[in-house]
Amino acid sequence: MKKTVLITGAHGFLGRHAARYFADAGYTVTGIGHGSWDSKEFARFGLTFWHAADITLDALVTYAGEPDMIVHCAGSGSVAFSMTHPYQDYGRTVSSMAAVLEYVRLHSPKTSVIYPSSAAVYGVVEKLPIMEASPLHPVSPYGVHKQIAEMLCQSYASSFHVSVAIIRFFSIYGPGLQKQLLWDACSKAERGDTAFSGTGLELRDWLHVIDAASLLGAVASHASPECPVFNGGSGEGVTVKEVLDEIVQAYGLNSGPKFSGKSRPGDPIGYQADMDNTIRLGWKPTIDWRSGVSDYVKWFKGACL
Amino acid sequence: MKKTVLITGAHGFLGRHAARYFADAGYTVTGIGHGSWDSKEFARFGLTFWHAADITLDALVTYAGEPDMIVHCAGSGSVAFSMTHPYQDYGRTVSSMAAVLEYVRLHSPKTSVIYPSSAAVYGVVEKLPIMEASPLHPVSPYGVHKQIAEMLCQSYASSFHVSVAIIRFFSIYGPGLQKQLLWDACSKAERGDTAFSGTGLELRDWLHVIDAASLLGAVASHASPECPVFNGGSGEGVTVKEVLDEIVQAYGLNSGPKFSGKSRPGDPIGYQADMDNTIRLGWKPTIDWRSGVSDYVKWFKGACL
Repeated sequence: MKKTVLITGAHGFLGRHAARYFADAGYTVTGIGHGSWDSKEFARFGLTFWHAADITLDALVTYAGEPDMIVHCAGSGSVAFSMTHPYQDYGRTVSSMAAVLEYVRLHSPKTSVIYPSSAAVYGVVEKLPIMEASPLHPVSPYGVHKQIAEMLCQSYASSFHVSVAIIRFFSIYGPGLQKQLLWDACSKAERGDTAFSGTGLELRDWLHVIDAASLLGAVASHASPECPVFNGGSGEGVTVKEVLDEIVQAYGLNSGPKFSGKSRPGDPIGYQADMDNTIRLGWKPTIDWRSGVSDYVKWFKGACL
Repeated sequence: MKKTVLITGAHGFLGRHAARYFADAGYTVTGIGHGSWDSKEFARFGLTFWHAADITLDALVTYAGEPDMIVHCAGSGSVAFSMTHPYQDYGRTVSSMAAVLEYVRLHSPKTSVIYPSSAAVYGVVEKLPIMEASPLHPVSPYGVHKQIAEMLCQSYASSFHVSVAIIRFFSIYGPGLQKQLLWDACSKAERGDTAFSGTGLELRDWLHVIDAASLLGAVASHASPECPVFNGGSGEGVTVKEVLDEIVQAYGLNSGPKFSGKSRPGDPIGYQADMDNTIRLGWKPTIDWRSGVSDYVKWFKGACL
């Protein structure tokens, strides 16, 4: 019999790529979450079933069944949103996680839970690269809520033997992502604007969404009541300036990016993942950031024709 | 004009004593939470208004007004319950806290929030006495959820300048408490049973509920966006055996308490608060544990006539 996976938030950026990955790996994929798409559209991402619903215990009881795995991609995806709507951010990230864990405890105890968390849980970082055991000092409600979701995973794992694995994703990007640095930069470059906030020296660790999806697959067999945590990055720190240079160049603009020199409060200075634990799983990223950014710009130009 | 306080969970053990304390201190006291009591009964504890409702954002919008202070006594009160009903424990402790903080952010930003948390957030303790800066390793869902509620307080304080103060209460007891060690011990002693689990050497730090309520009052003026945390104990470590000796003796039983010698998993070996930060507020406990336990036994005998 085919293995089954339920992907929450399957209509989202990571969710749909996770669906595609697991379908290609031979799973029957069910999706649940917000979003409206027809069966032809969701089938393109490998989904067999789609349920448009909030991720609540009621909805899971109704739709989840007993999958081999739940990949919990639902949740807030924006630091800025968490500053204007902290209660909604809490609901999307924390309440949905509580519902998933309780569902598994009560109704499907053999189901593994894979949780894509965020490097935002590290918050203010004192030392690079960041290890999984590095201290957690999240600065935004977004990061705090991701940390709380992780704590619920650990609590259900240790108290109720739910099998869980957590990945702290760094900067996931790729065609289809309509927010964050690359999207903003392409939008600006399109109209010849090369002015950016920050210093340009901020380090980010980029991971293509195709690689992010394959990492979800790689950790799946490691979910356990020990609740292991893995960093999800490339291991390479790239400055914002390097990335913007690529984009500005791809748009054939004469001047390079100009920076305000001012950091936004809460913006981390540097993010770079220590990937030793993750690499030890046998997984590694396949898409270099330069070719990934180049592909992104091509997609952006096409999408905005 | 009289100052106003909203006490969530005012029908509970700590909640009703908090209501009594703030009424005596000149506040107009409104209560909200679970529980059914008539106006004569709740007036006895100093409440002017009582609203029987879940602590949700909707309920707060309807009933809370703009009090000078919210003392958030609502929440789960049982480690054992959290092991059998973790999702309900989460709802009572975490969701209610999120609602209170969001209510204050949106509708009453001048309101201070006082949160009675629990020493259960310390969990497995390596060194006594326990300081507020000691590491947090909660072992039960109950303790994890209290820690999460604290994190939400800190997040709203730092991101949205909500004024908060947290007290981590140790073993609150007093007449009216119908659970935990003293209640169980009196119930057993009443029928001549002197067999207890554990080793008897477990340390606890007892705080009479009258003193707990006065401590809520003492920290009230220290609530701030710095979100200070204070231990709420006596500072004295008392063994379970010492307490049970008192009770068994009060019942005139010939033999002292007998212990199984086996600890329950998750039971902390020792809890004793470092009270330096709290004492510096000018507060101190007034009821010695021996006289407090003696009063408790008298109440128990009367209540069970």
